[in-house]
Amino acid sequence: MFDKILIANRGEVALRVMRACKELGIKTVAVYSTEDADTYPVRYADEAVCIGPAPANKSYLVIPNIIEAALQTGAQAIHPGYGFLAENSEFARACADNDLVFIGPAPECIDSMGDKSSARETMKACGVPTVPGSDGCLDTVEEAKAFADAVGYPVLIKATAGGGGKGMREVHAPEDLESQYKAARAEAGAAFGNDGVYLEKLVLRPRHVEVQVLADDFGNNIALCERDCSVQRRHQKLIEEAPSPALTDEIRRQMTLAALKAVRAVNYRNAGTIEFLLDERGHFYFMEMNTRVQVEHPVSEQITGTDIIKEQLRIAAGEPISCANRAPFSPQGHAMEFRINAEDPAHGFRPCPGTITKFEAPSGPGVRVESYIRSGAKISPYYDSMVAKLIISGQDREEVLARARRALDEFEIEGIATTIPFHKRVLENEAFCEGDVTTAFIETEMGDVL
Amino acid sequence: MFDKILIANRGEVALRVMRACKELGIKTVAVYSTEDADTYPVRYADEAVCIGPAPANKSYLVIPNIIEAALQTGAQAIHPGYGFLAENSEFARACADNDLVFIGPAPECIDSMGDKSSARETMKACGVPTVPGSDGCLDTVEEAKAFADAVGYPVLIKATAGGGGKGMREVHAPEDLESQYKAARAEAGAAFGNDGVYLEKLVLRPRHVEVQVLADDFGNNIALCERDCSVQRRHQKLIEEAPSPALTDEIRRQMTLAALKAVRAVNYRNAGTIEFLLDERGHFYFMEMNTRVQVEHPVSEQITGTDIIKEQLRIAAGEPISCANRAPFSPQGHAMEFRINAEDPAHGFRPCPGTITKFEAPSGPGVRVESYIRSGAKISPYYDSMVAKLIISGQDREEVLARARRALDEFEIEGIATTIPFHKRVLENEAFCEGDVTTAFIETEMGDVL
Repeated sequence: MFDKILIANRGEVALRVMRACKELGIKTVAVYSTEDADTYPVRYADEAVCIGPAPANKSYLVIPNIIEAALQTGAQAIHPGYGFLAENSEFARACADNDLVFIGPAPECIDSMGDKSSARETMKACGVPTVPGSDGCLDTVEEAKAFADAVGYPVLIKATAGGGGKGMREVHAPEDLESQYKAARAEAGAAFGNDGVYLEKLVLRPRHVEVQVLADDFGNNIALCERDCSVQRRHQKLIEEAPSPALTDEIRRQMTLAALKAVRAVNYRNAGTIEFLLDERGHFYFMEMNTRVQVEHPVSEQITGTDIIKEQLRIAAGEPISCANRAPFSPQGHAMEFRINAEDPAHGFRPCPGTITKFEAPSGPGVRVESYIRSGAKISPYYDSMVAKLIISGQDREEVLARARRALDEFEIEGIATTIPFHKRVLENEAFCEGDVTTAFIETEMGDVL
Repeated sequence: MFDKILIANRGEVALRVMRACKELGIKTVAVYSTEDADTYPVRYADEAVCIGPAPANKSYLVIPNIIEAALQTGAQAIHPGYGFLAENSEFARACADNDLVFIGPAPECIDSMGDKSSARETMKACGVPTVPGSDGCLDTVEEAKAFADAVGYPVLIKATAGGGGKGMREVHAPEDLESQYKAARAEAGAAFGNDGVYLEKLVLRPRHVEVQVLADDFGNNIALCERDCSVQRRHQKLIEEAPSPALTDEIRRQMTLAALKAVRAVNYRNAGTIEFLLDERGHFYFMEMNTRVQVEHPVSEQITGTDIIKEQLRIAAGEPISCANRAPFSPQGHAMEFRINAEDPAHGFRPCPGTITKFEAPSGPGVRVESYIRSGAKISPYYDSMVAKLIISGQDREEVLARARRALDEFEIEGIATTIPFHKRVLENEAFCEGDVTTAFIETEMGDVL
């Protein structure tokens, strides 16, 4: 196992990785922007190196600064967390060039899955179901029109370099195609420096269901059940749960097999997530693979009794997955994650940076809180607005819903607006409580908060 | 299910019961002493009634005041928590006389198990192994001598009304018997108003292992695995874990069967604990039954995915145990509880009441905190010194040990001395880390802190 690693991230995920390191006896190096100098993860680490000012493109995204910090402190490996450089193959290559272990998959894997269009081709070739779509990018509006006519409306335009909903457009009628096609290309170009787009048949009333996988150098490819992340606002997840209330044991089995096929097809290593769209008839289609740990990984940990970050560290250090002997996993109880963001749901979820004057997290049975915040902490306007993740576990979904209401009532955050009132309202929604939601849930059922 | 119940307790366990009630949609009534008026559980309850000043015999132990509070507020049932009136059959009868449900077993069960000597007889009669001992109380020192000579030294003198180590004396040589016999009777008389004592053969190098049971009106008698509570100081538990590192699957099976035999023998209802002494050869002997929920119940919840307080409420309301269909339970992972007391381990664990100026509890994966404390809270000298329970879970004992070290390092309590430094030292002890401890562990291995 490593003696010392560097965590190339901030906030909640930096602390989460450091805690795992501490439990494995690994020393930690934090990197931080001047904006983050007073945050708890910087104090928590054994060492900390300032790598520049905010915003991120002057610090957390500056590859040479991070590599230099690792070399200076004698770190043997780098954990990228999620976001920032976590899916940047150039960063993974820079690590390798400097004899640093990148705690994640090989750069080739990041590339092959990062290009959404080629990832789709790879999955199709190995027998993982995909949504009927254009084979490769559509370079002209005429090509796009022809494809849409062939598969029928509605269709979805997606950026091949996409993520987080950017460069994505639904088209419900032929007359809207041209304008949406142009808008998607422009947005993709601005966001990713790559304006390639492709088309897919739009799955109606879909759920977002994803499979957490782990793969090591010893041939252990395992799945830690699925997560349902259908509650999204503009493709940003807000509530995630495991297992999915929409899956039967048989669909779970099929989806797991498909996910493991995907893992083998790209010779994947480390933790990853295969995202699927699930339609109302129980058919599922590959959407994309995330080649990193995800924000919502704790719900999978809760229902499988695993520690995904520790497994990432073990895999990267050339050790076998420690929970491999317990696979295949079937869900033990139920878990749900609520993202507590510094956003005001009463005003279109606008970000609310500021100073947290009081932070009292809930506790008791089935309550896990992942947060880097203590009373007096400042939420910076430069970074994402997540303040805490509230993860609730219970013997079944009904217990989790009741416990979540209890815990959200106990959560006291003062000084900024948060998504806590939004989550309380979701927990009063009948469709949500019955597990009957699609990715359009917030728009259709909670529209008055948007 | 009940609409409203009263919680006849304070501090951590009062909050624990209220949280369970909130998750089940039950309104709560707190009772409190003037000393406790500003505590969090009093604010947390839907209603709160002052029942007198400190100490407890002017408030929490005054049965008429509590009954009156329940009748005034329209509560249908009373949860006694642990300690105070939890094993007082008079209180259970007073509840019944006022048409209030006592959330616990029938008064006859409390009585039959509360008298340690008759409990032992009952267990012997139904085939549960007991330590060779005097059949009934020994009223003269001559009787005691004769018995000790017959079974051989060392022997243990125990108060028949005993609990918490009071009225208990080890005798290792005949010349000490008379003085210890008299001391035990005097102590028992002062503590319990009953100076009856009996003798048992002293089990050498014993572990304290106990089985958590639940029994309902529908014939469901289930065991939630065992807890190992060998780390005790003067018979007060400090660290508890589940499962016991000393049990094989076969001993677990036998101990579970014995515990369920005990439950059936007294026609038990609700949650209870059968305590056993386990010797080095894997033989176990009934010690006593606790007819209430115990401080250490969370470790059993963690490894079985149950909520024992909710099951207590269901059973008392005439509902079946909700987890009965999952029995028999086998341990899922491992859990350990560390009692964080306001005591100074550097000075003989002397109580340290005072104001907590800072309270930052650890969090993250596998960390559960049960506490009624928030920063600024006062620890009263009138009540027991427990400030918090830190419950750590993990996939195996090794992960729990590492995680416990991490979490104890994160725990910041300022303003008073606590047992946190003691727990950190225990986690450095080789015998403890190997699971090789007896009830004498603190005296023999941690003697320098006493």
